[in-house]
Amino acid sequence: MGMQEKPFFLAVAAVIRNGEGRVLLLKRSDDDTINPGKWDLPGGKIDEGETFDQALVREVREESGLAVGLCHVAGAGELELPDKRIAYLILECAAESGDISLSPEHSAYCWIDPAEAAVLDLAPQYRDLFSRYARGFEGYHPG
Amino acid sequence: MGMQEKPFFLAVAAVIRNGEGRVLLLKRSDDDTINPGKWDLPGGKIDEGETFDQALVREVREESGLAVGLCHVAGAGELELPDKRIAYLILECAAESGDISLSPEHSAYCWIDPAEAAVLDLAPQYRDLFSRYARGFEGYHPG
Repeated sequence: MGMQEKPFFLAVAAVIRNGEGRVLLLKRSDDDTINPGKWDLPGGKIDEGETFDQALVREVREESGLAVGLCHVAGAGELELPDKRIAYLILECAAESGDISLSPEHSAYCWIDPAEAAVLDLAPQYRDLFSRYARGFEGYHPG
Repeated sequence: MGMQEKPFFLAVAAVIRNGEGRVLLLKRSDDDTINPGKWDLPGGKIDEGETFDQALVREVREESGLAVGLCHVAGAGELELPDKRIAYLILECAAESGDISLSPEHSAYCWIDPAEAAVLDLAPQYRDLFSRYARGFEGYHPG
């Protein structure tokens, strides 16, 4: 199958910062079929009839227990799978409440300085964003 | 209205390169209500019932006359308007056919080295991407 013919899907992901500016990363379960054991951002697919902002708030709540509001666009990423490609739109979000509660999809979490997250075994779709943070990018604030 | 309450919409945009690696930019009409006279990428909103890749192919055809295929994620951007915010997912596309035919939305076009596009008066949602190109970013190719 050529690159052009592989279907492209859209997903959303959240960069959630705590009061110290650290970012929430979730470790994917070792038995996941996609990116097992890799460090992940909360997020996922947009369900039918759902807008991208609704999808992101839902996915963050399902995967972390946190209630968030969308602040700004942070960046983008891409995941290449054998049968499809997934485009990720990544947004900076603010957490409105505190305690983390993981879903079975993840086995651990951490709050990390985004400039240092590239030392972790990140899911490939987030490496471009975190290498930007490592080079001094502080998030995208238009206007 | 606080930042958190402004609704967020999603749009798509295309970085289309010609055989010399130059990128297609379109100049917005001077009487447009949004970004009049600014240099723009082809793209726009996702219509109801349409996937993001269908929307991008449709918008590129409407605004440039070109038939394109989606290659890779290029980046993201954000446009802040008085009553809403628009998140842009930007994809690198390959043009499958050649002659440019503009819609009334644009008044001119150019093909420019992406590293030099920041000298133009760009629409703000694309400034982050083109400042990356100016610093040596060559496009995002995962894997």
